Amino acid sequence: MTDTSDNTANTMWGGRFAAGPDAIMTAINASIEFDQRLYPQDIRGSRAHAAMLAAQGIISPSDEKAIGEGLLTVLSEIESGEFTFSVALEDIHMNVESRLKEIIGEPAGRLHTARSRNDQVATDFRLWVRDRCDIVIECLEAVIRAALSQAEQGADWVMPGFTHLQTAQPVTWGHHMMAYVEMFGRDKSRFEDARKRMNESPLGAAALAGTSFPIDRHATAAALGFDRPMANSLDAVSDRDFALEFLSSAAICAVHLSRLAEELVIWSSAQFRFVTLSDRFSTGSSIMPQKKNPDAAELIRAKIGRILGATVALFVVMKGLPLAYSKDMQEDKEQVFDAADNLVLALAAMSGMLTDLTANRDKLEAAAGSGFSTATDLADWLVRAAGLPFRDAHHVTGTLVAMAEKKGIDLPELTLAEMQSVNPTITQEIYSVLGVHNSVASRQSYGGTAPDQVRAQIARWKEKLA
Amino acid sequence: MTDTSDNTANTMWGGRFAAGPDAIMTAINASIEFDQRLYPQDIRGSRAHAAMLAAQGIISPSDEKAIGEGLLTVLSEIESGEFTFSVALEDIHMNVESRLKEIIGEPAGRLHTARSRNDQVATDFRLWVRDRCDIVIECLEAVIRAALSQAEQGADWVMPGFTHLQTAQPVTWGHHMMAYVEMFGRDKSRFEDARKRMNESPLGAAALAGTSFPIDRHATAAALGFDRPMANSLDAVSDRDFALEFLSSAAICAVHLSRLAEELVIWSSAQFRFVTLSDRFSTGSSIMPQKKNPDAAELIRAKIGRILGATVALFVVMKGLPLAYSKDMQEDKEQVFDAADNLVLALAAMSGMLTDLTANRDKLEAAAGSGFSTATDLADWLVRAAGLPFRDAHHVTGTLVAMAEKKGIDLPELTLAEMQSVNPTITQEIYSVLGVHNSVASRQSYGGTAPDQVRAQIARWKEKLA
Amino acid sequence: MTDTSDNTANTMWGGRFAAGPDAIMTAINASIEFDQRLYPQDIRGSRAHAAMLAAQGIISPSDEKAIGEGLLTVLSEIESGEFTFSVALEDIHMNVESRLKEIIGEPAGRLHTARSRNDQVATDFRLWVRDRCDIVIECLEAVIRAALSQAEQGADWVMPGFTHLQTAQPVTWGHHMMAYVEMFGRDKSRFEDARKRMNESPLGAAALAGTSFPIDRHATAAALGFDRPMANSLDAVSDRDFALEFLSSAAICAVHLSRLAEELVIWSSAQFRFVTLSDRFSTGSSIMPQKKNPDAAELIRAKIGRILGATVALFVVMKGLPLAYSKDMQEDKEQVFDAADNLVLALAAMSGMLTDLTANRDKLEAAAGSGFSTATDLADWLVRAAGLPFRDAHHVTGTLVAMAEKKGIDLPELTLAEMQSVNPTITQEIYSVLGVHNSVASRQSYGGTAPDQVRAQIARWKEKLA
Amino acid sequence: MTDTSDNTANTMWGGRFAAGPDAIMTAINASIEFDQRLYPQDIRGSRAHAAMLAAQGIISPSDEKAIGEGLLTVLSEIESGEFTFSVALEDIHMNVESRLKEIIGEPAGRLHTARSRNDQVATDFRLWVRDRCDIVIECLEAVIRAALSQAEQGADWVMPGFTHLQTAQPVTWGHHMMAYVEMFGRDKSRFEDARKRMNESPLGAAALAGTSFPIDRHATAAALGFDRPMANSLDAVSDRDFALEFLSSAAICAVHLSRLAEELVIWSSAQFRFVTLSDRFSTGSSIMPQKKNPDAAELIRAKIGRILGATVALFVVMKGLPLAYSKDMQEDKEQVFDAADNLVLALAAMSGMLTDLTANRDKLEAAAGSGFSTATDLADWLVRAAGLPFRDAHHVTGTLVAMAEKKGIDLPELTLAEMQSVNPTITQEIYSVLGVHNSVASRQSYGGTAPDQVRAQIARWKEKLA
Repeated sequence: MTDTSDNTANTMWGGRFAAGPDAIMTAINASIEFDQRLYPQDIRGSRAHAAMLAAQGIISPSDEKAIGEGLLTVLSEIESGEFTFSVALEDIHMNVESRLKEIIGEPAGRLHTARSRNDQVATDFRLWVRDRCDIVIECLEAVIRAALSQAEQGADWVMPGFTHLQTAQPVTWGHHMMAYVEMFGRDKSRFEDARKRMNESPLGAAALAGTSFPIDRHATAAALGFDRPMANSLDAVSDRDFALEFLSSAAICAVHLSRLAEELVIWSSAQFRFVTLSDRFSTGSSIMPQKKNPDAAELIRAKIGRILGATVALFVVMKGLPLAYSKDMQEDKEQVFDAADNLVLALAAMSGMLTDLTANRDKLEAAAGSGFSTATDLADWLVRAAGLPFRDAHHVTGTLVAMAEKKGIDLPELTLAEMQSVNPTITQEIYSVLGVHNSVASRQSYGGTAPDQVRAQIARWKEKLA
Repeated sequence: MTDTSDNTANTMWGGRFAAGPDAIMTAINASIEFDQRLYPQDIRGSRAHAAMLAAQGIISPSDEKAIGEGLLTVLSEIESGEFTFSVALEDIHMNVESRLKEIIGEPAGRLHTARSRNDQVATDFRLWVRDRCDIVIECLEAVIRAALSQAEQGADWVMPGFTHLQTAQPVTWGHHMMAYVEMFGRDKSRFEDARKRMNESPLGAAALAGTSFPIDRHATAAALGFDRPMANSLDAVSDRDFALEFLSSAAICAVHLSRLAEELVIWSSAQFRFVTLSDRFSTGSSIMPQKKNPDAAELIRAKIGRILGATVALFVVMKGLPLAYSKDMQEDKEQVFDAADNLVLALAAMSGMLTDLTANRDKLEAAAGSGFSTATDLADWLVRAAGLPFRDAHHVTGTLVAMAEKKGIDLPELTLAEMQSVNPTITQEIYSVLGVHNSVASRQSYGGTAPDQVRAQIARWKEKLA
Repeated sequence: MTDTSDNTANTMWGGRFAAGPDAIMTAINASIEFDQRLYPQDIRGSRAHAAMLAAQGIISPSDEKAIGEGLLTVLSEIESGEFTFSVALEDIHMNVESRLKEIIGEPAGRLHTARSRNDQVATDFRLWVRDRCDIVIECLEAVIRAALSQAEQGADWVMPGFTHLQTAQPVTWGHHMMAYVEMFGRDKSRFEDARKRMNESPLGAAALAGTSFPIDRHATAAALGFDRPMANSLDAVSDRDFALEFLSSAAICAVHLSRLAEELVIWSSAQFRFVTLSDRFSTGSSIMPQKKNPDAAELIRAKIGRILGATVALFVVMKGLPLAYSKDMQEDKEQVFDAADNLVLALAAMSGMLTDLTANRDKLEAAAGSGFSTATDLADWLVRAAGLPFRDAHHVTGTLVAMAEKKGIDLPELTLAEMQSVNPTITQEIYSVLGVHNSVASRQSYGGTAPDQVRAQIARWKEKLA
Repeated sequence: MTDTSDNTANTMWGGRFAAGPDAIMTAINASIEFDQRLYPQDIRGSRAHAAMLAAQGIISPSDEKAIGEGLLTVLSEIESGEFTFSVALEDIHMNVESRLKEIIGEPAGRLHTARSRNDQVATDFRLWVRDRCDIVIECLEAVIRAALSQAEQGADWVMPGFTHLQTAQPVTWGHHMMAYVEMFGRDKSRFEDARKRMNESPLGAAALAGTSFPIDRHATAAALGFDRPMANSLDAVSDRDFALEFLSSAAICAVHLSRLAEELVIWSSAQFRFVTLSDRFSTGSSIMPQKKNPDAAELIRAKIGRILGATVALFVVMKGLPLAYSKDMQEDKEQVFDAADNLVLALAAMSGMLTDLTANRDKLEAAAGSGFSTATDLADWLVRAAGLPFRDAHHVTGTLVAMAEKKGIDLPELTLAEMQSVNPTITQEIYSVLGVHNSVASRQSYGGTAPDQVRAQIARWKEKLA
């Protein structure tokens, strides 16, 4: 129901249900307002079905020709906006079939042979979701490319590595960006797996039991790009796993988007100024020209709300439904449409924002060095070079940091003598590990933040995407 | 975003974001597609604001007159469908103000004095949700009346009282209906409480800090039917509790609807046949004329999905938002609109279905008597009349039921001798508690299933609603 | 199920279900592991029931005496830790009754007269939730007091008022704190409403139909502090609205906690330093002594997750359950227990943190003044004193801000001549509205950020709590 | 927090937080109460880490030996129940390390070299979830086998195929069972994909930046059965995708369980009697011996509630967390533990129930034939054999059904003359498609309900599982 006028709403529901039972039943029952989006899938499925019926001798070649051409006419009518959808005809299937009958007459009545609305809608919706997987994957690649490009530019720019939003150790901007590349990369593989699992054809399951007509389900499956027909006709019409898995994967992706968006909001604040958003992905104030509100980032951050909401909605709808088809399942489409639209939109906006983003190298570096962020480097050197046990090294480091803090200086500014007064095994070499650039350069472990390691990560991803 | 054409979608997002960053930003940022529903509230709020500005001497009486009349013109343009909403103007507030300026010129620029979009949208949305509380309460009363009417008709019709979907004890149809009256009654009181709590005016909070203009927030609050102005301006623009509480209350109500709908689906099955749905709230099959699919009941059952989904969505959006206004909060409206529309629709459909419903008295009574459903009556008699401890009485009853089951008869068909062979204290009086009509008649405890008690419940509710 | 040993788990489920069907059924069916928490409520309910049975002549005074004293013995055994809960006895009701029988013998068998486990568990659980409402309300008052105390101290300390985490206008620390007082105040009223609505007694509904014993439900209701007996026995045993409403209210409260916790995390960052957390509500690093991780704030922020999760869980469990009792409903308790425990814990931690918190007045004030945060004050002055239309005033302000920005100075540092070069109507008076202290002092509208207004808010709340 | 005593709770939180801030911080901060379950994974990970450190020359072989043996001692202490977990030591990592130090002294201090609690907990938890994938997959195979066994026995038993819980067409019991095999089969592949995706090692990511020690992350990855080390150290410590994907997959599986459980509840009702549950998976009534409450089925049906709740909880926790580690993430474990435990338990119970289940062949067949369930067979014959267009065939069928209904007989009982009076092209052959056995036998399309097709499905699955 997409009733947009308050007045209508008041008339309809307010005035003691003046609309009457029939209008209420139509309002709750008809799906054409939203399932009309399935028209390309519906027509594609019907054409494949008709071709198979003819190939199997179930309908005549001339009927098939009429049906196939008639459906193309309907398609062009819809795409050109000439088509009038009728609520009385309830759904996209009846709207298309009814128009087909007007155009080609009697043969239209043979299209529905060996088919039911149950397997038809299952096929249409599955094709739609499969198409969305492809679009989402394309969008994810675009976000990954945008992040890679940021990573490449700042592979060796130092910034604070945060835990608890407190500086823990220096990392590089490239390293931070590559963390998101990994997340979006996993998202991509999740949508690829989901696409593969859903790529089976329900067509030919008919109402629920299969059919006595000598149909060829493998043929329609192949024609529609499915890997195979679904193995059980009851399951074919009652399954909505593909939608649940799409939604769950979308929700995980939306979590990643929300994390990056949160960082962009925080980083854009006057207090951080780690990044500057482009004008086109922020909004201003007519009287405070320096103010840049990160609207796009905030809206992206919020999308996990509606996508998780849609996910919960479909899980709840499916809970406890007996086999095979229940009308409850008509509630599946709006949730998936809304989640898919918003995920694609959020990914596109994030792509754009990342592409346009300016990381403020100076601000990042200044922040990286504050807070004795190389204390762990000192401790690690004590273990590695001076042979102290880990816990003892921590004790020495704590003392030196306290000494520096008292003097109001940073660790590299302590003299060797001062250091040796705490632990005599310390040598001049210690200075090679202090300082944020030394620190990040030293994190050479696989996947670490050393610029070389970051560049290796970038190279691996470029190869993957090539 | 309500993009309905797949082709457009493909062009827009698929083809490497051919639409470009500006189109993406517009798509994610503009709210006019959905917030146009707020036009009556927006215009009402602006008129109250202008009147107050004039009363306080902040704008001139002539400006106020021009603004007030201009806004009524805008209102009638929208209601007559002449108004063209512009996406470039982003939201309902700018669409209305911009049109006002075209109509009345310069004075339009004074309307926004001592106001901000932050308190304006908070006011509009709160007024909308408050209106929905009123509509939902009206709908709940209609459902309660329909259930009361069913209860009155069948106050003494016996049916099985189920636990675990197994017959436990006989109850009456009226009693069962009255259980739902209680649930919907609590829903009503929950919406009444929510309405009362939300009935405070955000208007005058301005951007977030209040204003230096000598406004009168109590005056605008009163003009808009609010009980008082909100006490803290930061809270006024950042609070969405009223929406969360509306959604939570809607979700509880939707649970009740889902339970009744589930019962209607089960009761309509060929195996139960406890009820017959009217033709207008079921759908048929062209070839199986006796088949009546309970489509409306199934769709009502499903609504808890989208309503709970919307609830989760807004909770997630609001999680962790710093004060005061964040753009994330723009995601609030669609969720509440969708939940409210669907709750109202489901309540209207349930009202209609209950009104039309035929309870099959014979089927109900036959089912009530099966399964030794009066065994507990026998046991209670043994405690009450024969003085056995509760647990002993249960043992005797179990033996008698087993005896009856072995003979293939029901409890009242056992002879007194047979009964006394198990426990000699049993007298002829035992027969007065066996049988489903005796059983229900005996449940005279307050709120029990005895027809007298049921009629007393009905009477109390009629008085409440009068 | 609270299986804590991985090895046991592996043995139990991994090894081809070596445990066998009986162990599996016990594991899924028994509730004693979690419902043992209901012992005080269970015993309280049983004592009230026994007293009523005696008063009505259904059991003898001596039996009642034995039962009442026996139950007190059981209570003290449980409280002293002597009691051994038995999984074989499944639930708290059977555990208590079985022990009672061991202690007092035969009269124990009379306690369950005119009662069923269905109304018994409904009563116990409702009492438990009602108790939690009281505790939560007390915790909310403590948080409110802590926030009030912060507000009082800093009623006139200026800080940035944020929108989009960008400085919008100056506000005061007290004003910001009072926004949370409003939120927690609404939470309190929500729990009060929920408590009132749930305060009806299910006891006496028996299995579902009421009972033929001449019980007095009003008496047990009164004895247990309920306002009245529930009106319909089917509803009494099948209703879990009180739990859903408790959970929803808890989730709204947890949103407020998450918002404040998020602010504390951001404010504690090196980049903000608006606040300093006490050592006891933060954790440190052995080698970075200046590092203070806001662990408690982060954990509080996370609690909305599990509380909303618990809420969703119970909604899903209740969806579509036919009347009256279904075993599914046994899943209600763990969710409510977990949500209640965590809400109370989070409120207690927030109370403590707020009490200990040091707001860094200098940092707040410095940040408040940056970013031309008084630009709206200038614009408002132009409207108010110079009579410009609102939109024109904004244009002039934008030009002045741009001029100041270009010169690298703040608005109050522009000379009058410079200002008049943009708009000649500007007078010396303009300087009285620029500057953050002037700005906040001017926001005198009801609920605004002016210190006087903030102090008035504080005074109203102190009165309310008194 | 698993506070189980109400009295303690009252003391702790009720009495104006008598416990004081320190106790509150401990209660909210410590994780040992739940993360002690990770001990096998923690010790396994530490042993692999120590072996690698020695192999790389970072610690001495003798230290490694001491550590390795000491950890085994700790392991056996925990497994034997001798180990005392300390809340003061906060988590499993510190509990194990502290005990190790007591046992082996100084070398224990070297174990934590080149490691942090951040990568340690990420490793432990990932190993735990991976183990659960394996257990869940095993459980799914057991459920599949149980359903296959039911399917094999009743491959040709006819029953009603329902849509809207109304008989639509006859299907076979085996076909219905195989629909669930498909669902659980998809679940299995989903857990297999999740396991593969999560099978990368976080170990060596250290706090977040990697380490300057010359560690070999590939070696520890291999030792722990991971396919490779994670590619980015920030991602390694901040990622919880594996948990979200596990939960989402569990929730989809729980939907399937809820659907089958709902069918079992309905099928066990007196009105359906399609199945009889075994005594061990149902509960009885002491006085109604024929009553069998499907408790296990109801509890299984409810599990989607808590599993979806846990899923929502973790999504909400992860929303908007900046990189890398935030304490919020400590809330991940309880949710996953609870969901995993309950999924495994529900699968085990469903396995047992299905294995024990008796399908009542006579009841199923009787129900299959009612309601003119072969009307579509008649219509299909008219299309196939008599060449009528689909929509015309439906019209003829509707007339014949109405005729039969009026006479109170079923379709096969109409005479040929009666049939021909409606449509003269009908021949004697029509009787070969009427009747439920003919009907199901004719549904020979791939995946259809014909017993041959069902047996082919069974055979394919047996091969897959072999």
